Amino acid sequence: MRNRHIGDFSEDDLIRTYFLPFSDGLDDDVARLKHTPGQELLLSTDALQEGIHFLRRSPARLIGEKVVRVNASDIVASGGVPRWLALSLSLPGKLEINWLGNFVEGLRRALEETGMELVGGDTTAAASHISICATALGTVPRGRSIPRSGARAGDFIGVTGYLGEATPGLDVILGKRRFDADITEYWVVRHFIPPFRGHFGAAVSSQVTAMMDLSDGVATDLPRLCAVSGVRAEVELNALPLSPEALGVGLTPEQAFTGAEDYELLFTVPPSRWRALETIAQTCGTKITRIGFLGKGRGLRILKGGKPVKHPVLPPWKHFS
Amino acid sequence: MRNRHIGDFSEDDLIRTYFLPFSDGLDDDVARLKHTPGQELLLSTDALQEGIHFLRRSPARLIGEKVVRVNASDIVASGGVPRWLALSLSLPGKLEINWLGNFVEGLRRALEETGMELVGGDTTAAASHISICATALGTVPRGRSIPRSGARAGDFIGVTGYLGEATPGLDVILGKRRFDADITEYWVVRHFIPPFRGHFGAAVSSQVTAMMDLSDGVATDLPRLCAVSGVRAEVELNALPLSPEALGVGLTPEQAFTGAEDYELLFTVPPSRWRALETIAQTCGTKITRIGFLGKGRGLRILKGGKPVKHPVLPPWKHFS
Repeated sequence: MRNRHIGDFSEDDLIRTYFLPFSDGLDDDVARLKHTPGQELLLSTDALQEGIHFLRRSPARLIGEKVVRVNASDIVASGGVPRWLALSLSLPGKLEINWLGNFVEGLRRALEETGMELVGGDTTAAASHISICATALGTVPRGRSIPRSGARAGDFIGVTGYLGEATPGLDVILGKRRFDADITEYWVVRHFIPPFRGHFGAAVSSQVTAMMDLSDGVATDLPRLCAVSGVRAEVELNALPLSPEALGVGLTPEQAFTGAEDYELLFTVPPSRWRALETIAQTCGTKITRIGFLGKGRGLRILKGGKPVKHPVLPPWKHFS
Repeated sequence: MRNRHIGDFSEDDLIRTYFLPFSDGLDDDVARLKHTPGQELLLSTDALQEGIHFLRRSPARLIGEKVVRVNASDIVASGGVPRWLALSLSLPGKLEINWLGNFVEGLRRALEETGMELVGGDTTAAASHISICATALGTVPRGRSIPRSGARAGDFIGVTGYLGEATPGLDVILGKRRFDADITEYWVVRHFIPPFRGHFGAAVSSQVTAMMDLSDGVATDLPRLCAVSGVRAEVELNALPLSPEALGVGLTPEQAFTGAEDYELLFTVPPSRWRALETIAQTCGTKITRIGFLGKGRGLRILKGGKPVKHPVLPPWKHFS
């Protein structure tokens, strides 16, 4: 199929070749879901646009991984189990058909990792740019989903994993930084493949008071959580978890604070439950770090080494364009 | 807000101004759905791309109407009740902010008409073209959804409404035809606003053997239904329902046969139930027309005035580009 393009195939051909191997039902306009009684349904939609979230030359396999993981992440952050994915793919006719094969390979891997099933979708033409939109559905026992708005003054603020991990890869993609080939690949993969925190998310649903995933960075997402919960936050920049690899390429706490697309979990929890949470995290193989606490009032106070600092001059997340 | 552009606003601003009036929950990444026990869930995803499904100068209000209606249509065609809509909107920064206001106005109207609720979504930047993706969820009593694959040899083939109604408007949009201003507006609206067949769809779910909506035209969609049902179809072109208005602008049966985006229902039903179906249709205020019947075997046989004709030379639906 070398050198053939999307425009050489009909929608039915593309579905038959690339998506029917996933599931028998994908040639229908409608997916039929076997929903478990007593469970609440959670829904999340996220789009990835060429030129904004990735470039034409970005590895298609990684984009396939990412579109599943970012949608699963929203469900996990609500304490749910991601179950079903619907995918809408709009492709320019001149795109090489190999792109789709690689994209589907990444999609399959991430579906397996997250335990989700591809249940439906839509394939259509795009005028010039690849456009990918996915909707994830998940389930959670009735009344057990975690809101953003449950955070209380006095709670600790915690995060999973390391922060700023998506940033060096973005710099590479944008041509702002250069590394040796193997280091470049490492960071590009880190940029496109966020971790899956499904086990931790489900295990802590009755412990945390609020949770969300970090799509836009702590600097942008924490104020959102505070606003809907009606609390103020105090964050210590030096407490932000930076990986040895990130420190090795000079990532700063300020970059970890503002860096987008980490898709780690940001959560709040009463101090009395922190130790229990650490035990759960250890069981799940997930690192957690306390980065600050909540107080009464509004807004965000940032400390570095205990001293108040201004909001880092680095702008919060702006997309490519 | 004259002359201001999408790029002048943050995602949070856009959501607060345009979408929060719909629902309190739209500032969360995840929608929580109150699902009725004993109901099966139906899901449908459809994308509308600028340059493919509409142009920048197409009225934004009509695009807002369309994205809701085409998604509702898939649910209705499965015998379900459309309930929830998730919307992903990717907008270029240079788009005038008025576009969004008009789009949202159309969205609201169509949500009201179809009885759906906007439950979630995603607003992001696009590099150059507007990209709209919607996912509809509906419910149907367990075991009562209508498959595409249930059609049997001997069944009549029926359609709702008039066919080819989206075609004159497309010709106008593409600059292939010109009409007086009021007639132009009539056909452009007909192109973008397909009818809602929710009442009829729900009422006939126990009568029809197979059903789907006509997104790509009878010429393309009927063979799909036949393939999954394992039957062959015979269609009489002169039986296709053409509206007086369509006849007035010279629409031919061949154009009605191949014309896409009508979003009427195509269904199959045993002859013994046809009269009952007509009664139901009358109650719903929906016109139905018998356009052919199914036999054993494979493929599609086309008659005109009882004589076999070749597949109309008009190509089946090709998108703009």
